[in-house]
Amino acid sequence: MRTFRTAIIGAGFMGRTHLEALRRLGSVEVAGVAAATIDEARALASPFGIERIETDYKLLLDDSSIDAVHVCTPNAMHFDVAAAALAAGKHVVCEKPLATNSADARKLVQLARQSQLRQLRHATNHNLRYYPMVQQMRALRESGELGEILIAQGTYSQDWLLYDTDWNWRVEARDGGPSRVMADIGSHWCDMAEHVTGLRITSLSADLQTFHKTRKRPAGPVGTFQNKISTPGVSEDVSVDTEDFGSVQFHMGERTRGAFTASQVSAGRKNRLSIEIYGTKSSVAWDQERPDELWMGHRNSANRVMIKDPSLLEPSARSYADFPGGHSEGYDDTFKQVFRRFYQSIADPAAKPEYPLFDDGLRQLQLVEAEIESNRSRRWVEIRS
Amino acid sequence: MRTFRTAIIGAGFMGRTHLEALRRLGSVEVAGVAAATIDEARALASPFGIERIETDYKLLLDDSSIDAVHVCTPNAMHFDVAAAALAAGKHVVCEKPLATNSADARKLVQLARQSQLRQLRHATNHNLRYYPMVQQMRALRESGELGEILIAQGTYSQDWLLYDTDWNWRVEARDGGPSRVMADIGSHWCDMAEHVTGLRITSLSADLQTFHKTRKRPAGPVGTFQNKISTPGVSEDVSVDTEDFGSVQFHMGERTRGAFTASQVSAGRKNRLSIEIYGTKSSVAWDQERPDELWMGHRNSANRVMIKDPSLLEPSARSYADFPGGHSEGYDDTFKQVFRRFYQSIADPAAKPEYPLFDDGLRQLQLVEAEIESNRSRRWVEIRS
Amino acid sequence: MRTFRTAIIGAGFMGRTHLEALRRLGSVEVAGVAAATIDEARALASPFGIERIETDYKLLLDDSSIDAVHVCTPNAMHFDVAAAALAAGKHVVCEKPLATNSADARKLVQLARQSQLRQLRHATNHNLRYYPMVQQMRALRESGELGEILIAQGTYSQDWLLYDTDWNWRVEARDGGPSRVMADIGSHWCDMAEHVTGLRITSLSADLQTFHKTRKRPAGPVGTFQNKISTPGVSEDVSVDTEDFGSVQFHMGERTRGAFTASQVSAGRKNRLSIEIYGTKSSVAWDQERPDELWMGHRNSANRVMIKDPSLLEPSARSYADFPGGHSEGYDDTFKQVFRRFYQSIADPAAKPEYPLFDDGLRQLQLVEAEIESNRSRRWVEIRS
Amino acid sequence: MRTFRTAIIGAGFMGRTHLEALRRLGSVEVAGVAAATIDEARALASPFGIERIETDYKLLLDDSSIDAVHVCTPNAMHFDVAAAALAAGKHVVCEKPLATNSADARKLVQLARQSQLRQLRHATNHNLRYYPMVQQMRALRESGELGEILIAQGTYSQDWLLYDTDWNWRVEARDGGPSRVMADIGSHWCDMAEHVTGLRITSLSADLQTFHKTRKRPAGPVGTFQNKISTPGVSEDVSVDTEDFGSVQFHMGERTRGAFTASQVSAGRKNRLSIEIYGTKSSVAWDQERPDELWMGHRNSANRVMIKDPSLLEPSARSYADFPGGHSEGYDDTFKQVFRRFYQSIADPAAKPEYPLFDDGLRQLQLVEAEIESNRSRRWVEIRS
Repeated sequence: MRTFRTAIIGAGFMGRTHLEALRRLGSVEVAGVAAATIDEARALASPFGIERIETDYKLLLDDSSIDAVHVCTPNAMHFDVAAAALAAGKHVVCEKPLATNSADARKLVQLARQSQLRQLRHATNHNLRYYPMVQQMRALRESGELGEILIAQGTYSQDWLLYDTDWNWRVEARDGGPSRVMADIGSHWCDMAEHVTGLRITSLSADLQTFHKTRKRPAGPVGTFQNKISTPGVSEDVSVDTEDFGSVQFHMGERTRGAFTASQVSAGRKNRLSIEIYGTKSSVAWDQERPDELWMGHRNSANRVMIKDPSLLEPSARSYADFPGGHSEGYDDTFKQVFRRFYQSIADPAAKPEYPLFDDGLRQLQLVEAEIESNRSRRWVEIRS
Repeated sequence: MRTFRTAIIGAGFMGRTHLEALRRLGSVEVAGVAAATIDEARALASPFGIERIETDYKLLLDDSSIDAVHVCTPNAMHFDVAAAALAAGKHVVCEKPLATNSADARKLVQLARQSQLRQLRHATNHNLRYYPMVQQMRALRESGELGEILIAQGTYSQDWLLYDTDWNWRVEARDGGPSRVMADIGSHWCDMAEHVTGLRITSLSADLQTFHKTRKRPAGPVGTFQNKISTPGVSEDVSVDTEDFGSVQFHMGERTRGAFTASQVSAGRKNRLSIEIYGTKSSVAWDQERPDELWMGHRNSANRVMIKDPSLLEPSARSYADFPGGHSEGYDDTFKQVFRRFYQSIADPAAKPEYPLFDDGLRQLQLVEAEIESNRSRRWVEIRS
Repeated sequence: MRTFRTAIIGAGFMGRTHLEALRRLGSVEVAGVAAATIDEARALASPFGIERIETDYKLLLDDSSIDAVHVCTPNAMHFDVAAAALAAGKHVVCEKPLATNSADARKLVQLARQSQLRQLRHATNHNLRYYPMVQQMRALRESGELGEILIAQGTYSQDWLLYDTDWNWRVEARDGGPSRVMADIGSHWCDMAEHVTGLRITSLSADLQTFHKTRKRPAGPVGTFQNKISTPGVSEDVSVDTEDFGSVQFHMGERTRGAFTASQVSAGRKNRLSIEIYGTKSSVAWDQERPDELWMGHRNSANRVMIKDPSLLEPSARSYADFPGGHSEGYDDTFKQVFRRFYQSIADPAAKPEYPLFDDGLRQLQLVEAEIESNRSRRWVEIRS
Repeated sequence: MRTFRTAIIGAGFMGRTHLEALRRLGSVEVAGVAAATIDEARALASPFGIERIETDYKLLLDDSSIDAVHVCTPNAMHFDVAAAALAAGKHVVCEKPLATNSADARKLVQLARQSQLRQLRHATNHNLRYYPMVQQMRALRESGELGEILIAQGTYSQDWLLYDTDWNWRVEARDGGPSRVMADIGSHWCDMAEHVTGLRITSLSADLQTFHKTRKRPAGPVGTFQNKISTPGVSEDVSVDTEDFGSVQFHMGERTRGAFTASQVSAGRKNRLSIEIYGTKSSVAWDQERPDELWMGHRNSANRVMIKDPSLLEPSARSYADFPGGHSEGYDDTFKQVFRRFYQSIADPAAKPEYPLFDDGLRQLQLVEAEIESNRSRRWVEIRS
């Protein structure tokens, strides 16, 4: 396979995660890093011998030797960077949410469609689909093992913003967009529920709550998840305009029903995306805090618990597990799985994309906006697809 | 303590469970059993040497030597039996739901109040409160360990009515009342959530679904949970007018939020009442399928898992655990805990009841009716308390 | 079924547990209680309206109206009481260990054989066999599901004697016999391993350790498991001559291998009897701290986890589960299962005993003595059967 | 940091795992791969653009531009390759076991000592120490949280060689050395037990068993863990001279006691290294199948369960966790942690090695040989250190 030259825009937690995952693919050379400050860019690039660092990402887009761009900036910049990258003829992997509103996301989908002439590939990084066990759930549904899907339920719960002294740029709508919990993690849950069931959420009722109406913003910047190990310093009180918690009821067509909650204030839950899918024949349940385990529920026989093992996975899920049975693969491995498939699809323009597109990013923004609207109106909202 | 003479009305799964639990108290003699047929009554009474068996429960109420009555009939009879028992001057333990509608339940509450002159005790058997670990959750909340309650969430999921060939008298509104899943098991969830948090649900949005619009009713009777081990026989198709599944979003006042689902069609879930309570300081989670374990979530230290152990329980929870650490106590033990306290309160008229009253039964029926109303109107419904 | 009159000798933790379990059987009337002091006897008997209480258990044995005796005294008295009870023509349930040495136990077995003419029944209360899931393991082995047994391994770990300030009569060989951990809980493990596999331990290597060579004995008595909630008082240093921990390697014939540990000083383990049986086809694992769950391991398909559910149990295990799926049954329920079968076998002299006999109690003492001998000699010891 | 040029010798499962982990470090360029056949070497090297591939590893050792060598061959070649690499002036990471006997391992340790003049670094890849939670266990012990260590126990169980049709080069002593289960995985267990407790095994009793005296060897080669997804073909019966299972009892000095089992025939256990350490103050337990969880046992308070979270780890363990709380890290990440520290120590000759040395590899071979000797003599064996 030919080797691709890639630039990473954004040097925070996500930029670092993308870089390390790309290094695990032989076919991709990370050729440049852009960040808000040159020190941030250097901190990420230097240990890997990446020489090109920039504060103006457009300079990287102007480099015709660069094939692809990974957008890892704060959410509010996603639209501008992704649009410019497509315009510059780059393949684009954009972190989620694709934009901070569905109108922008729709424009990106349109730009991506126009770029098809130039065979540009686009992905929204809903990476959590790519745990081997999530693929196994999908494969079991596709093979008919679950029967008809009746219920999808679960939660995505974290605790890193439990206290009013916890801060991150996502707290302010200005940087993160009007929704926080639902856009950041609720969207992962919905993306997984739709990916696994193969069904679409058609209407929903949402109830959002901002427990901390005011939070203490520190003087300096705070990286995502870094607040918990920082030492507190000078701070100022800031009104919070994004939600800490939400619950959603939903329909998937006439028959299937569902519900989930999302929270960043649930003490003790570090990164618990729990999803349960109940069908007429059997059911599946999975928890991101134990990613290598899959529970399968049965009515007339014992339940099953599978420890990740390529020899036990359905054929379509097997290629998502790179290590033998019981040799755990983690959160970081999901990025490798997405990116491998992304670059394979660049190498083979005839290949069908096996990763989430900009369209999937748009989809999740439409759901988030429906949740905001439902919360405001206290009514069920139909999803226009 | 003096010995009480008690009658059990209803000889199904619940009648049997009440009888065995009462035997474990030294202070209660089961003096009579009434059931729909004399054979049913005899089957329950005979192994315990209970000589008095009746098909007309009123004959037991007429017996002035009987102090108390346990109402274990199908739901639709609860009101009549409980009302008659109070009128006959008996202390009454009524299985839940207290009645099939809140109007009847309210009448029972009024009758119970009028009976206070006669110092008659009354209980609705929301027994699930009385697992030691549920009491521990309540004790932790009362002691301030959890801080202010932010979120209550969970599910009560079973699978015994998954197939359209599964049948029980509860399926038909005629015998079980207009709500099945929410009244039968959703009410247990709400009762526990209110008991543990000390808060009241003030408004809710409910979404109910009957997946099987038609079920196959066997020619003969089927005991609760007995369908799974019965051999199928002649059956007829019956339209189903009670729900298989429901999801509920709710507010507990201005600040606290919650959500739960209830289901009898979730493959692999046998009796999973899962409840999670998140506070500003810490959180608790419990699952009835592992009743002796309590999870306690923390943000800035490791989470805790307690195996039931009297020496570790809060003082107010300790008396609910009769066995040493790691010596499991089960579903059946919760009945013993309720009944012990019920009869102690008869012996000591000055004692404050430490068990759920008819008022609590009424409360749950009000919530069920709000759920039905919300599902019908597709709107949030305020709970009048 | 006819009603039996029974006496309980010993009014501690075990006496109480026996009494409550007997009450759950309709067929047994507890007619008398004997204890070291009349106050102890009264404390147990009085709440259940049992009028006859004694300090001299022989007076109860002289009562010809008494059919059966439950021996619940400290270990050192088991032999005398059980022998006297058989001599007095009583059916005998003896707590384990059956005696404090195999010579005494052998005499009891002989007495029991001689009593067969009088159709006296005898049981050693290895109650832990009678969790429904333990019976399910046995049933799976009997049906060939496991294939040939290769390995048996596990542990029985508790923490109630972790500190040198923890005290109980079992600590002193004088009252408890020369072995503590192996006799008290290791014997439960071995009994279960032999019961489930159907194989016999044929040789073993044991390593015992007394971590606390000295313990502080309080001035007053301390009930089993009661030390953790007692307030400390005056105590004296006592040399300890019984072990805190042991590990055992063993053979079951030519092919099958095994190993287990037993401990009363393992912080955080309250009553964890964990047993794993690996066969050529599949395997099973069970943990007393989650008694309603059974893990079943498979090589070429997903593992299974069964939540106790009569409809899922093998037919021969089903009668050990009195409650429906997911309605937990606990430690106390195992006593009910043993005693029900014991009294049924009295009622039906032709019935084969479905409970552990005095022979099983002797068997465990032989193993304990082999463990002591192996630990002393630092060699493998053959078990003479 | 300067960049190092590294060669990988051996292109099987381990070679691939080393390569991918090295790619995640910016400071290491994999400059060559040697394997038994040129096709194997190419299959590993080509996707990563590594141009130099060889069947004669000595050609890579002759390349003076190569700084370091990773030995990933079958066990029987470890000694020759590692010795030659040191002689050629390379830093060496050797897979475990360091050799197939302690005499060879001792020579390697001597060679390594002699190479210190040339500042050559050496490591035996006991990678499992480097799960964040294993480091946390060690840190808790070092900080005194556990008190004095009383007991270490556990198991390392797999099922990939359960059937007699399962084959791998390790089955034959010729390629894998005289011990299979104990050398392959038992040594991981012992290494971890000694690493976490800081104590040394001083004597042991071992019992080994080869359940399959004969296995079916396929005509072609079978990669490690690949047997389960291969299609069977022509095979021949081969006598097996390595063990399938072993149990070990051990002393760590006068006071501490332990026991473990190791197995490759335990159905349903994919890669379960379970270790439990009990101290006088508290205890820890960890299972490789759920690597991000740590159980901490307490006697007088609730137990703890920590989900991996850098903000909760002890300072000395924190640097082993690269991702935030609840973002799982897996088996592959442990290699990254070892190699990062290995190359950092090359860059900084003054640095103390924070990884297992050849000495640690020798240590484990001494234990394996003691196990073989104990099994043969049926006696306890003292460990000469």
